[in-house]
Parts: sequence; C-alpha cells; structure tokens
Amino acid sequence: MDPRVKKHAEIMVNWSTAVVEDEMVMIVAPPTAHELVVALAGEIAKKSASYLALMESDEVLRSYLEQADDRTLAVFPRHYESALESSDVVIWILAPASVSTLAGIPPEKIALRAKTREPLFDLHLSKRWCDTLHPCPALAQQADMSLEEYRDFVYNAILIDWSGLSEDMSALAKRLNRHGDIHLVGHGTSLHAETKGRVWMVEDGKHNMPSGEVYTSPVENSVEGEIYFDIPFLYQGRIIEGVKLWFEKGLVVDFEAERGEGTLKDILDTDAGSRRLGEIAVGMNRGISRYTRNMLFDEKMRDTIHCALGRGLAECNGTNESAVHLDMVKSMHDGEIVAGRETIYRAGKLLR
Amino acid sequence: MDPRVKKHAEIMVNWSTAVVEDEMVMIVAPPTAHELVVALAGEIAKKSASYLALMESDEVLRSYLEQADDRTLAVFPRHYESALESSDVVIWILAPASVSTLAGIPPEKIALRAKTREPLFDLHLSKRWCDTLHPCPALAQQADMSLEEYRDFVYNAILIDWSGLSEDMSALAKRLNRHGDIHLVGHGTSLHAETKGRVWMVEDGKHNMPSGEVYTSPVENSVEGEIYFDIPFLYQGRIIEGVKLWFEKGLVVDFEAERGEGTLKDILDTDAGSRRLGEIAVGMNRGISRYTRNMLFDEKMRDTIHCALGRGLAECNGTNESAVHLDMVKSMHDGEIVAGRETIYRAGKLLR
Repeated sequence: MDPRVKKHAEIMVNWSTAVVEDEMVMIVAPPTAHELVVALAGEIAKKSASYLALMESDEVLRSYLEQADDRTLAVFPRHYESALESSDVVIWILAPASVSTLAGIPPEKIALRAKTREPLFDLHLSKRWCDTLHPCPALAQQADMSLEEYRDFVYNAILIDWSGLSEDMSALAKRLNRHGDIHLVGHGTSLHAETKGRVWMVEDGKHNMPSGEVYTSPVENSVEGEIYFDIPFLYQGRIIEGVKLWFEKGLVVDFEAERGEGTLKDILDTDAGSRRLGEIAVGMNRGISRYTRNMLFDEKMRDTIHCALGRGLAECNGTNESAVHLDMVKSMHDGEIVAGRETIYRAGKLLR
Repeated sequence: MDPRVKKHAEIMVNWSTAVVEDEMVMIVAPPTAHELVVALAGEIAKKSASYLALMESDEVLRSYLEQADDRTLAVFPRHYESALESSDVVIWILAPASVSTLAGIPPEKIALRAKTREPLFDLHLSKRWCDTLHPCPALAQQADMSLEEYRDFVYNAILIDWSGLSEDMSALAKRLNRHGDIHLVGHGTSLHAETKGRVWMVEDGKHNMPSGEVYTSPVENSVEGEIYFDIPFLYQGRIIEGVKLWFEKGLVVDFEAERGEGTLKDILDTDAGSRRLGEIAVGMNRGISRYTRNMLFDEKMRDTIHCALGRGLAECNGTNESAVHLDMVKSMHDGEIVAGRETIYRAGKLLR
C-alpha cells in the first residue's frame, strides 16, 4: 500500500473527525476506495472505536434507479437511518469507477430519491462528518493526469500541516472580521462588497479533505464593480471559461464568457437570487498549485479567491436564496485584497 | 455483465429471501462481489424494497484486528446492530480477494471479537437470511479451476429449478420421516442408524445458495457399522482423504484415513461428542457433479451422502453436543439408501 494512504487515514481519524474511544464510525465508500477503508479501519482500531463500512457506488445506485418506479423511490431506508442514528462520525469517500455512470438517468428519479432521503441529510449533518476522496483512474482522467501524477497532486493537498494552516486561516478570518468590507483588485477586476453583520469562517479540513479556505457571504445589495474569473470550470459536464461579471447594487448587470456564455446566461437566469453573490472566499491550501476543473480542489488553491453566484451561507449570516451556488475561481498572483484600509494580500503574499 | 449474475440476483431476491414491498434488505459483501451487489440492487428495486450494502472484507478486518487491543475488541458495534435490527432480510456474499488474508492473525483476537459480537449472530438468525457466493479468482484457485470454468461450475449449481428441487426434496424427506431408521450401503460401507423422534429436513436455497440436501440428526447411541468417505476435504487448511470409521453404540471405535489421519485423530479426540454423528444427509443438487474441496458445494453434490461428526442439529431434534461439526462426503453411485424396508435410492437413482 502507498504509505500516503495510511497518512491520509491518520489525518481523517485524528484531525478531521477526531475519533475517540468507544465511538461508532460510519464509512461510506465505493469499492474503488477499498484501500483507504482498509487504512481507516486500522486507525479506528487504534482509537478503540468501531467501524461500519457502507458500499455505495454509482453502479449500484444506477441499477436501483433504473428499476425503481415512484413507489420504490418513496421507500424510506430505515436501516440506513438506524445505522446513521447510532453513529458518532461519518466519513464519506469519493472515488468513482467512472464519473459518467449516472448519465442518462432521468433527473426526476434522482430528485424523488433525494426528497425521500431528505431527513437523512439533516441527520448526517448532525454528526461529526467529513467528505474526502481517494485518487482513482476516473478522477485522474477528469483532471487530465496520469494516476501517478494525480496521486501526487491529491496527497500534496491532503498531507499538509492542518494545525498550522488552521491557525493561519483563523488569524486571517479574525483580521477580516474586524473590517466591514472587502475590495478585490486584479486583472480586469475591481470589486467591492460590504460584510457588516456577516462572519468570515474557516474551512480547515473538518468537513472537506482537502480543504483550506476563509469565506463569507457578502451583504447582498452591496456588491459593486467588475470581476474576471480566469480559471475554467465545469458546470454539469460543460466547460465555462473566462467569465467577466459587472455588478450594480449587488446585481449582475452585464456578463461575458470566453467559453460557455450561453450556459452562464442560463445559470444567471435561474431565479431571483442567481444574479447575486452568495459567497466570497480566499483559497489558502498551499499544496494546491494548479487547477483540475474539480471545484473541491480549485476553490482551495493558493493565491486565488472565489465567488459564488446564488445561495448564501447560513453560518456566515448570508441570506441570499437561490437554487444556484456556482463557484468561480480567480488567480490573485497579480492581485490585491483590501479590507477597510488594510491591505491583506498582495501578489502572492499575505501581509501582516 | 455476465447475464448469469443477474439470474443469480433474481433467485436470491425472489426465491431465497422472497423480498416484498417496503422491506429493508441488508447486503454484506466484499468489493470483489460488487457486480452481484449491482444486480441485487436492481432486483430489490423491482420489489419496491430498499437496500443497504455493507462493505466487509478480510483486508479491512485484518487491518482492524492488527491494531486492536483487548479494549478495542470489546467495543460493541452499535451502528451495525441498529442497521440489522431495522432490516428484514440479510444477504451475505462470500467472494474473498484471497482466502489467506487472515493468516497469522492470533486466533484469540478473532475469538474475542466473535464473543463481543455474539448477540449480533442471534439477531442475524432472527431475520430472513441467505448466504451465497460470487465466483472470483481466489475461490476459482481454491477449486483448482480457471475463473471461467469456476463460473460455469458455480452457476450450474445456482441457476437451477429451485421450486422443482424443493418439491423433490420435500417428497424424499416425507418418505424418510415415515421410517424410524436409515441404512447406508456401498463401497466399504454398511452403516445403520435410528431416526425415531428425529426430523428429516430440507435445505432448498433459503439459507444457503447453492444448496440442496435432505438431512437429519440420528439417535446418537444408535449408529452401528462402518462407513468409507471417498471425497477429500479440507480441515483448517489441511487435506483429509479416504476416511474410514467403525461405529459401536454410536461411538467411533476405530478409524483410518489415507491422508491426514493425525488430523482426524485430533478432531475425534476434541470432546465427548466428537466421536458421535451429529448429522446424516443426502446431497440432492444435480447441478453439482464434481467436488471442489469446498464443503458448501461438496455436501450438496448429487449422488452423495454426507455425515458430520460432532454437534447435532436442533431443528432435527439432534442432541449431541460438541465443538466439532465435521462434514464428510461419500459417493453413492454404486450405493444404496434403505429406510425401514423401503429402498429409497440405488446406484444414481431415487426409487419411487
């Protein structure tokens, strides 16, 4: 076994979910992640805790959905609920055999299933939970890398000093929380937003691994100016690149995209909240130095900021409502972040 | 997917466990059996029931046991208990990546874990449960076959007319239950046992798939005569072959083996019950025509009988107590089964 798999498991059990004696840990993983489940079981044993591993794969789900009618999709999985209720910790592992397995399944079926399982979602969130991924050929392919290269990429982002990064991010959040606004400056960009009454939070690997961002929801009507997102990203399998947005009183009044402009227009026109920003955040994971069109990594990339159109974040006191939450990432190598009269970041460096 | 995997799943859901609407089905399987789990999910959906798949592998278990101390091994898996309590049906699939994964793990650890989980065993038995296997390279290797040949072998035993076999076996059990004794005659064999007060039962794929046997526990002190078991078998990884036993008043008074006689002696000397027969049975699966040193198949083989030294079967009113239950199989191509004055079977044919 690649020794990094074991280190990954150590971080999940010791840092992300902080398992202690006699706790019940549920692991949810596809067969492709078996190796990480093996490593996790050993770490859980060291804590004198107990594991229950669920096998969830898109192939199994597809087989079920293909045969399921509305009556079937309304059946509530009481055995899964019971297991979840009795668990203290849930570790969920992404490692698809293929990212296209659910292609062609009617979205109504997936939506109906999700509706039936809605109480499970809240139950899940009431636990100590952390989502992670295990490098596998399908994810490597999606990132346009060989599996070996992708493994290096993933473990560079995961096997870092989380305690140190957490302290750095907390310090940054504290500074940002002292101010009532933020100003992003850079190539094609000068965007101002108020953050009074909002909270800057840190994501330090307790819910997502890898992670590393400091984020808030801006005051919805306060966003003014223009911003250019240079990092390409995928939306429902389609690429969007080079997005430029113009804001007035919080609303997108004009937009452009070098690629996928039609898709962008559809997203902006979704509902009343989809032309407003629900999130502004700073990427802080120095182990991520290139984008892979996987938002889980890209939005955490060092020397970037990201903004999300649509739904605001309740934990930051965000109030914007929308079916959309579309993250878009911008490099800040040549940029500046200013809060109040303080320059927080300039051209690759956090200023103290 | 091999269409036989889907047929196997149909039999498990329709015949073995007879899943109906709104039922909770738990599947326990290693990653090697993923394909069968995929097929089962589809069949369960057709019933408007719900599945929960657990990933259990010897590799995960080994990793846990290696790191577990006595305190860890005493932790009761409450999440697993909860899931089991809420389930109506449990389907357990054997498909090891290797049959040697647990080699070298101290048996005390395995025993301590089993002791902690004992209440789960009873809970499991209180459900509708069926164990099966999915053909995989490790099992094919154990059977000295290529994977393709092994698949043919397994599906020949599983994809049969269970309803028809069940009727045939019930008819045989009914005939045997009308008599008070049984007499086995064949090469090196003339064994007589009383069966008064005992019940002949059928195993027709409701708890084991494949299956196919009619069995009872003889009156312990009544077994007289000699018997020769020509089919070789494995006991804790060691081969035993050509066993000959001589009985007086139910007790083995002499024994021989062409191979593994020392091992046989150790088994016979285990405890007070290990020199008595706990089971006599007739193999009835006509899809199994050769032995593979896997008792799950061998004891069901057509034109065979098998006897077990040691523990009797409660459901047949067997009373012999022992830590041992050692099945041994004998070909009956040239033999006869007589009950009372009725010849039940002669040289490959059940007589009506």
